[in-house]
Amino acid sequence: MADLSRADAALPLPKRTGADLEARARELLPPAVYDYYAGGSETETTLLEAPLAWQRWRLRPRMLSGVSAPELTTTVLGTPVASPIGVAPWALQRMAHPEGELATAAGCARTGSLMTVSTTATVPLDEVAAVAPESAKWFQLYQVHGPAYTDDLVRRAAAAGYRALVLTVDLPILGRRLRDLANDFQLPEGLVMANHPDQAAEPVNPELPVSAAGGSGVSVRRLSEALDSVDETPPWTYANVEHFAGLTDLPVVVKGVLRGDDAQRCLEAGASAVWVSTHGGRQVDRAVSSAAALVDVVSAVNDHAEVYVDGGIRSGTDALIALALGARVVFCARPVIWGLAIDGVDGVADVLSRLRTELAHSMTLCGVASVQRVPRDLVTL
Amino acid sequence: MADLSRADAALPLPKRTGADLEARARELLPPAVYDYYAGGSETETTLLEAPLAWQRWRLRPRMLSGVSAPELTTTVLGTPVASPIGVAPWALQRMAHPEGELATAAGCARTGSLMTVSTTATVPLDEVAAVAPESAKWFQLYQVHGPAYTDDLVRRAAAAGYRALVLTVDLPILGRRLRDLANDFQLPEGLVMANHPDQAAEPVNPELPVSAAGGSGVSVRRLSEALDSVDETPPWTYANVEHFAGLTDLPVVVKGVLRGDDAQRCLEAGASAVWVSTHGGRQVDRAVSSAAALVDVVSAVNDHAEVYVDGGIRSGTDALIALALGARVVFCARPVIWGLAIDGVDGVADVLSRLRTELAHSMTLCGVASVQRVPRDLVTL
Amino acid sequence: MADLSRADAALPLPKRTGADLEARARELLPPAVYDYYAGGSETETTLLEAPLAWQRWRLRPRMLSGVSAPELTTTVLGTPVASPIGVAPWALQRMAHPEGELATAAGCARTGSLMTVSTTATVPLDEVAAVAPESAKWFQLYQVHGPAYTDDLVRRAAAAGYRALVLTVDLPILGRRLRDLANDFQLPEGLVMANHPDQAAEPVNPELPVSAAGGSGVSVRRLSEALDSVDETPPWTYANVEHFAGLTDLPVVVKGVLRGDDAQRCLEAGASAVWVSTHGGRQVDRAVSSAAALVDVVSAVNDHAEVYVDGGIRSGTDALIALALGARVVFCARPVIWGLAIDGVDGVADVLSRLRTELAHSMTLCGVASVQRVPRDLVTL
Amino acid sequence: MADLSRADAALPLPKRTGADLEARARELLPPAVYDYYAGGSETETTLLEAPLAWQRWRLRPRMLSGVSAPELTTTVLGTPVASPIGVAPWALQRMAHPEGELATAAGCARTGSLMTVSTTATVPLDEVAAVAPESAKWFQLYQVHGPAYTDDLVRRAAAAGYRALVLTVDLPILGRRLRDLANDFQLPEGLVMANHPDQAAEPVNPELPVSAAGGSGVSVRRLSEALDSVDETPPWTYANVEHFAGLTDLPVVVKGVLRGDDAQRCLEAGASAVWVSTHGGRQVDRAVSSAAALVDVVSAVNDHAEVYVDGGIRSGTDALIALALGARVVFCARPVIWGLAIDGVDGVADVLSRLRTELAHSMTLCGVASVQRVPRDLVTL
Repeated sequence: MADLSRADAALPLPKRTGADLEARARELLPPAVYDYYAGGSETETTLLEAPLAWQRWRLRPRMLSGVSAPELTTTVLGTPVASPIGVAPWALQRMAHPEGELATAAGCARTGSLMTVSTTATVPLDEVAAVAPESAKWFQLYQVHGPAYTDDLVRRAAAAGYRALVLTVDLPILGRRLRDLANDFQLPEGLVMANHPDQAAEPVNPELPVSAAGGSGVSVRRLSEALDSVDETPPWTYANVEHFAGLTDLPVVVKGVLRGDDAQRCLEAGASAVWVSTHGGRQVDRAVSSAAALVDVVSAVNDHAEVYVDGGIRSGTDALIALALGARVVFCARPVIWGLAIDGVDGVADVLSRLRTELAHSMTLCGVASVQRVPRDLVTL
Repeated sequence: MADLSRADAALPLPKRTGADLEARARELLPPAVYDYYAGGSETETTLLEAPLAWQRWRLRPRMLSGVSAPELTTTVLGTPVASPIGVAPWALQRMAHPEGELATAAGCARTGSLMTVSTTATVPLDEVAAVAPESAKWFQLYQVHGPAYTDDLVRRAAAAGYRALVLTVDLPILGRRLRDLANDFQLPEGLVMANHPDQAAEPVNPELPVSAAGGSGVSVRRLSEALDSVDETPPWTYANVEHFAGLTDLPVVVKGVLRGDDAQRCLEAGASAVWVSTHGGRQVDRAVSSAAALVDVVSAVNDHAEVYVDGGIRSGTDALIALALGARVVFCARPVIWGLAIDGVDGVADVLSRLRTELAHSMTLCGVASVQRVPRDLVTL
Repeated sequence: MADLSRADAALPLPKRTGADLEARARELLPPAVYDYYAGGSETETTLLEAPLAWQRWRLRPRMLSGVSAPELTTTVLGTPVASPIGVAPWALQRMAHPEGELATAAGCARTGSLMTVSTTATVPLDEVAAVAPESAKWFQLYQVHGPAYTDDLVRRAAAAGYRALVLTVDLPILGRRLRDLANDFQLPEGLVMANHPDQAAEPVNPELPVSAAGGSGVSVRRLSEALDSVDETPPWTYANVEHFAGLTDLPVVVKGVLRGDDAQRCLEAGASAVWVSTHGGRQVDRAVSSAAALVDVVSAVNDHAEVYVDGGIRSGTDALIALALGARVVFCARPVIWGLAIDGVDGVADVLSRLRTELAHSMTLCGVASVQRVPRDLVTL
Repeated sequence: MADLSRADAALPLPKRTGADLEARARELLPPAVYDYYAGGSETETTLLEAPLAWQRWRLRPRMLSGVSAPELTTTVLGTPVASPIGVAPWALQRMAHPEGELATAAGCARTGSLMTVSTTATVPLDEVAAVAPESAKWFQLYQVHGPAYTDDLVRRAAAAGYRALVLTVDLPILGRRLRDLANDFQLPEGLVMANHPDQAAEPVNPELPVSAAGGSGVSVRRLSEALDSVDETPPWTYANVEHFAGLTDLPVVVKGVLRGDDAQRCLEAGASAVWVSTHGGRQVDRAVSSAAALVDVVSAVNDHAEVYVDGGIRSGTDALIALALGARVVFCARPVIWGLAIDGVDGVADVLSRLRTELAHSMTLCGVASVQRVPRDLVTL
């Protein structure tokens, strides 16, 4: 406890980690890149409500518990992690910093945080894995270039040491992100989606300055096609969950679930866990918040599987509330993006350390001894 | 799905169809005409709350449903329509554009949308019907010049190919629209209520510029008298519903119902369907919202008849929410008015296409396969 | 109906009768006098919430009812009145207009409205009664100069033709009205509380311009003492209700009740009716609103007596909501004060006519045939 | 009643005692000292919500009760006090005024108010007690310099005449007060924590001007260490409550309880009473409000012990609401701090007198005869 206390006192903490860092990152990034990361779909209602939904809950701290050094380590699908705050997948990280996914992976490794690497990474999945071979990493899967190529990605991920396969199921088509349309957003010159077949061969120049004005000529429509796999392949169904569960020994996590009944069907189809998410407010606008959906999903899953959540978690207190509502771990993306943009590996590690410190601080004040046992009655509306 | 996706990506969609178009139309229209279309009664509370009442609901999207090309076609009282988004009646459309109701009818025909033509049209009902003889059209009825003349209007509508008779029952007297009173709003020079007996003979000049400053000398009081039929005829009762149901083979739709018990009585009196509406916030100020009333009416009708709704629907997501709450189809007026004012036939068709595209997009993301089967649990407060 | 419709269309109605008139009256009145009338106690929370509490309710209008000329006449304790909107008592009316209570009484008589005359009138109760001998008037009683003098006031009121005795029971001490304290508010020179013993002899100059700067030297403390009867007499209890019920043949109305249990005890003590009021937000700050208290009181009284209400009623729709919640009649003060300040008798009559017209209009649109039978389910939260 | 009425009328009362005084105090205090007193932890959500939580409740005043001179005296753990409004402990009072805790104690004595003296006082506990030997005082205990020294403080407090021991249990570590971190807040030069072992010997200069710019070099980290007792001692548990209950004949009050189950365990461990508090919004940010926690704790304690509350009480009406919700007495800190900063002893006494007057006024208007019997149904949400 003494260590934490000193750390807290020494840190010139901003009022909200996210808001502070976001403002700094916004100054550094090209406006269209900032908008790509910061924006949501349509009216951005779901984007806006995500953090507010956690802020509605109030803590009921327990006193005289004797907790002075709360336990932050836990396991996720059996893999030990140093804290229950992981990194959600997001696309095109070399737009934020020349080292892109390599820096994020190194920052996660330094802080013992679970990283989820996206299919839409700008560095091949094997190279990302090689940066931090001992650290816990998951691979997030989109359908790319048809089933055979996609299956091959899964096998490559397993071979590269990823510990789970995360199926993102909330993108049958791309949400309408009006900022990107207004900006005519394009993949910056020199960047490729390194796990896509027709681009993987192009050289990745890690020195590329992100402020370079020229675009790659890959328009948002092209991005949409790449992400949507607008070929002959229909969108995924529960049969695809069964397929991937059979294809690999990796546990399958279904990401993008917002209903309890969907969560149950995912588990019946062979998923090992479900991940509640609104895709950063970038897909279904005016959807229920992750916080509201978490309550529904946890109730339906009823302890038969682990449940994760992302969306609007901006502080250690937000994370503690999500754990109290039944999440095994939580994931963040935007705060980590801003850290990456500001200072690469160090920025990523700094953000994750701050969140971890905030969580430990809140747990100590609230008398919660371990992230694995956060009582439901710690929080109330 | 691929088609929709490409269409979405290509459209420079505004944040809210309605808000964007309304601003453009406002610039084009004379202020008093804009106020006439945009305004509501008294404090405009019901006007203001109409869109907010849909925005309160949240979507609970279903994942992995395999929906890629949702079915938007449906039937209304047995008539096939290309989408469940129809056009509500509104008065005096040649104030918005020289072609008035003719343009609206052509735009509806082009997009396969159901149009409801008002008794207070500025083009005779037969001429409107002749523009698009194959397209689905309904005729909205007010009491005009006594029962005999009104009955004759009904017969003319049936002969002209209208598929249903819509009785507007929420106008025993005209609501107090303070904007019109402040503007001393008058019917512009050269326009007539073409279905009214003492005006139908006057020539309609389709070239009349709507920005012409001169009024027709038909003051708001005169309008009120025309609309109210302030002659010896008392306001309609259920006996009138019975009368019209017996008078014509057309199905009778009662528009303006805001209570479940009223809806039941309408059906008992011979109505085939009920249409929940607050008359665009122009009649009873501080009434319940259409969204709230829809829930009450759907519960009371209990699947024994079709229920429709208008009021504050400004996007495909609003429409999807209304369908989930039990509406068979929804109707819009103001977004279509702005489209008409901006670009005549093309403007009307553009608005209706956008709404249809938005609806398809939301359905795909939410895993809803058909507008005829939108589950009630898709939405929650 | 036709008459109402024409009247509505012709009236250049402001958005809110109260707001519009208040602004005009504010320009005419000395600031301290305006503050005296407009202000409330302490934080003015109860003052602020009074109109908002009616505005929270929504109407559920009934269609096809055939109502075209709603009945506005009713009876109050058996006395016929032309509308269910009466005038609440307020003090010192000659501050607002030289004719003071005489003008208010004449305006009420012209519109058939029930007037409640205050003990703190600036014209003796007999003179007020003589202005409109046939019109319905009630006398509001405070304790003045000890029990014997107070009893004598009651006998004078009965002799002068007042039809009921209204006991104001929410003033055991004067609320702290911070505006008056800040203004060092004083009774203007030349005005007296004409029903108080030591002032009644002073001449009342009806020509006194209200903008006269000089004060009477009667400070707010002196006012407080006059109103509080800070002599040996303790504040009223239920024994006093019994006393007055026995003293006079006039029915006794207890004004200022905010709880159902208090209302029951008032009836047990001999009251004929109860009047829900927060004293214009001038006594208990942060009290429940009149609208909320009305629901409680109506439920407790359970049709065994008439219930009245004042507080924040600013339009005919507000009045209709109060009637639906169970009030027999409603009372207004501030809108009438502003009318009096603007135009004396004509101003008072104009305000009361407008409210009556608005009520009739709302009733017609909502299908309510009579103010004596407004269904509870007309309104919902 | 007459006395109160006159007092009220004469006082130029501000709209809110707290807001008015705070603005004046803010002008007088060095910005970093003002921030130290005014601020809360993290996002200051709990700080902000504290007064709002009382303001949500509404009064249901009882009329005709005959109350004219409400009884404000009560007892706390058997000790008579002149009013149910006591003074909560706060640190470092000589920062606000040269006389610090001595002035606060004298102001409390003058008004018959219970004072709670903090371990972190800038005047030794014995000297504070000596200022007002007959007046009711409690001693608030933190762990300081290990168990033996802390036990000795308890014995000194008992010997000095303190009537109860208040264990503050919500500070296992210091909350992160971002204002202090941003200001690099330091204990001003010349001030010491007079009850701490390594500082008690340093001279206290009561003439020290609080606006002196120089700091003492005692940084916020040093303060944190002093308050946290970051030595080998673990944070308190229920065993410590048992220890202190056995160590002294003084009744033990546990301060900082926010849950009903915690309150029960405190009583089981030997506490005589529990004190609901959020530590002025300075510890757990986003905790439940004191008002909400009070309801939970009162329900759990179920009349088996006295319950107190602090947090956001800024007026007599707030205090009355807290009493209705079951608090035996309430405590204030910030309003008293501002009074101390403005005018020393007189300022403290003035604030306490105002609060007392406001409470008596509200009780009279609401018909509440005694602070010892405030009915629960006086308030409603």
